[in-house]
Order: sequence, then structure tokens, then C-alpha cells
Amino acid sequence: MLFIKDCRCVEFNKYDIKSLDRVNRLKLINSITGVKPANLVGTKSKKGVSNLAIMSSVVHLSSDPALIGFITRPCGKYRRDTYNNIMQQQQFTINHIIENDIEKAHYTSAKFDESISEFEACGFHEEYIDGIEAPFVKQSAIKIGLQYIEHVSIKSSNTTLIVGEVIHISVPDEIIDKNGYMDLGASKSVGISGLNSYYSLSHIESFPYARVENIPKEFV
Amino acid sequence: MLFIKDCRCVEFNKYDIKSLDRVNRLKLINSITGVKPANLVGTKSKKGVSNLAIMSSVVHLSSDPALIGFITRPCGKYRRDTYNNIMQQQQFTINHIIENDIEKAHYTSAKFDESISEFEACGFHEEYIDGIEAPFVKQSAIKIGLQYIEHVSIKSSNTTLIVGEVIHISVPDEIIDKNGYMDLGASKSVGISGLNSYYSLSHIESFPYARVENIPKEFV
Repeated sequence: MLFIKDCRCVEFNKYDIKSLDRVNRLKLINSITGVKPANLVGTKSKKGVSNLAIMSSVVHLSSDPALIGFITRPCGKYRRDTYNNIMQQQQFTINHIIENDIEKAHYTSAKFDESISEFEACGFHEEYIDGIEAPFVKQSAIKIGLQYIEHVSIKSSNTTLIVGEVIHISVPDEIIDKNGYMDLGASKSVGISGLNSYYSLSHIESFPYARVENIPKEFV
Repeated sequence: MLFIKDCRCVEFNKYDIKSLDRVNRLKLINSITGVKPANLVGTKSKKGVSNLAIMSSVVHLSSDPALIGFITRPCGKYRRDTYNNIMQQQQFTINHIIENDIEKAHYTSAKFDESISEFEACGFHEEYIDGIEAPFVKQSAIKIGLQYIEHVSIKSSNTTLIVGEVIHISVPDEIIDKNGYMDLGASKSVGISGLNSYYSLSHIESFPYARVENIPKEFV
């Protein structure tokens, strides 16, 4: 089969990617995976300072046990408050960013001093529930409390996957439809591309579990 | 701080989650991470059979080297064509699902016989470029070719992270703006929640790199 171009495309091979300047490579490679979930990870330090960090790498790992992960860089040249706090306190929260809060959430990625809480600095409100010492984001519609389970080193990228077990979920009942599906558009949850572009979500359609015998004939 | 409810919320603790029936737990835990990127992973078997599989767990790992991963279950009770093909051929492609193709893409998750190509069964067209033996999806606007780098076991979830280095990217130039940012709404890329709900994306806003000194005063 031949490679036929019928649209004006920009193409990059391995060497083109390598020879891009750092900022343009970051923009490109951080965008090409598609839309990423926009979450705030809440933690607390040993000294009691709350921390809030925007994360676009949260990923579903398993439903039973209920496990969720996110990718972070381990401590090296820079201070990693989220990583350090989770290792110390063994708990963290994941909170969906809602449309009204995208600018505030974006600024949690600034390099604040260790003694500064991003909740206060960026205008978020803390919320707590019994048994979880990490702070939730009051403004978020969907909130998850997690117990640290393990961290997994990814050698090739010098990153770490932090895995947590879901021990608390809070979801507004109005965003769950009669079939038990959540509408992430109704919760005003947003998506991210690259490092700084934010998207709203509109539900198009939901399909039943895919079985070979139910494939619509018009596909082929 | 107290936990104050000002919305009608459904709440689940660890035991509530555990005691849900399997299908409802799947729906819940697969949705709470937020929107997931909707991609098709293209591979080819030793026997030359093309395979196409919908994946919602693609994640950015590193920009230099340019590394992308996705989560899969290793071979056990079920046949895992994508995993097997990548281990054999050491290459794969990741292709954004576009709005027009969500139903076709959804059905690539049906359990086809090993000898059946999901390209043919679901109505996708293969496309090839020099140096990459895995098939691309002609219909996709954004296409990535990858060389297998490593797989990382995640013990707690009995899953595997497959890591690939980006060796080819194709992006329509009309979706890249003057600042070098991709608009995933313009590319008609979609998002997924849970196992079967699809979302269109609308760009809301992009913000500059976050610096402490530039934080808007109205936040606090």
C-alpha cells in the first residue's frame, strides 16, 4: 500500500523531532497523544502545608481493585512537593478541574515556595473527609480520595508512575444518567492538550459493549 | 475544616466500591479519571494480519526522548493481539479517532478471530510509510509511528505499560496555530469516558507558562 497524501500535513521523523528546539518539541510531543484529563492532585506535607498541582497524566489502571495512577518525575534537580508529600503521608486526592477554574488551576504549576499552599495562592478551597488527611478541592464536581499503593519506575523516560487505590469518590448525582454513565460535559470537567490548552467536552454518543455479532453491516 | 455538602452527591467509600456489582464498578471507576484520549493502536502480526484496537490509556511520558505509553493487560486468559504483535514486530502506530469514526472505532474492541483484521471488519483504511511496518489509519488526522522501547509491569493492577519512541508524526498543518499549538477540536479528535461514551472537544483558552510573578491578583 502506498502512502498517499490527500491533505496538507506536517510530517516529522525521528531526526526532525530530535532537532526541534526544546520548547517546540515540548509543544508537539505533549499534544499528539490527544486530549488529556485535567485534574488537581491534593496532598499535605509533614509540616501541614497543603499542596495542589495540576496533572494531565492521570490514568485508569484497574477497576477491581480500584486503582488509578499518574506519571511524575522523581525528585532530582527540582523539588517535587506532590511526590514527597505522597511518600510521606501515603494519601492523595484527585479532583476534576471545572471550566470556571481553568486559569486558577493552570497557575498551580508555578514554582511556589515550599511553605506556600497553592490552595491559598490560586484561590481554591480545601475540603476534608474522615479518614483522608489529604485535602480535596471544594469547587470540583468529581473528587477522588486515594491511598498510596506503589510507585513504578519507567526507566526509559526517567519518570515514575504513582499508583493509588480509590478509597473515596464523590460525584454529583445529576451527572449520572439512567444507565449509570457519567456525563463529563454535565460535570463541566475539562480536557487539556499540550501544557496549556483547555477544552470543554460535549457528549456525542454512547455505544453498547462491542460484540462481533452486533457490528453494523454498513461498516464494510 | 468541615466537609460541607452543598450539592446532592453520590458518595462511595472503599467498601461501597468493593461491593458494587462488576459492571457498575467498571462504569464508575473507568469514568472518574476524567476524559481520556481516543486512539486506535495499529499493529501487524508475524503472519501479516493487521490489527486495530481502541485504546483510552495513551499517556505522554517524555518529550526528549519523545516517549509515549499505553496501559494493557498482559496475555493471560484472553488473547492479546496488540501486545503480541508489538512484542514480535517492535513497532506500532497510534491514530486519533475522529468524530465521524467513533462507532467504527468502538467496534474494534469486539473479540474478532485472530485471522480477521479490524481494519477490514470495521471499515478503516490502512496506510504505510517507509521504515514502519505497522499500519496507520488513513482516516485519522493525527498519526504517530512508534518503535517499541520497553514494557513495565504494574504489579498492583496486573497491567503493563508499553513504552514506544515516536519515530513519525503526521499532523494537518491547518490545526496548528501561529503559536505552534495544536487545536484538537479542529482535528476533530475525540475523548472517551468510561468504556463507551464519546465526547467532542471545544478549545476554551490557552494560557502562558505559569510563573509565580504573573499570577492574576483576583485569584485570592
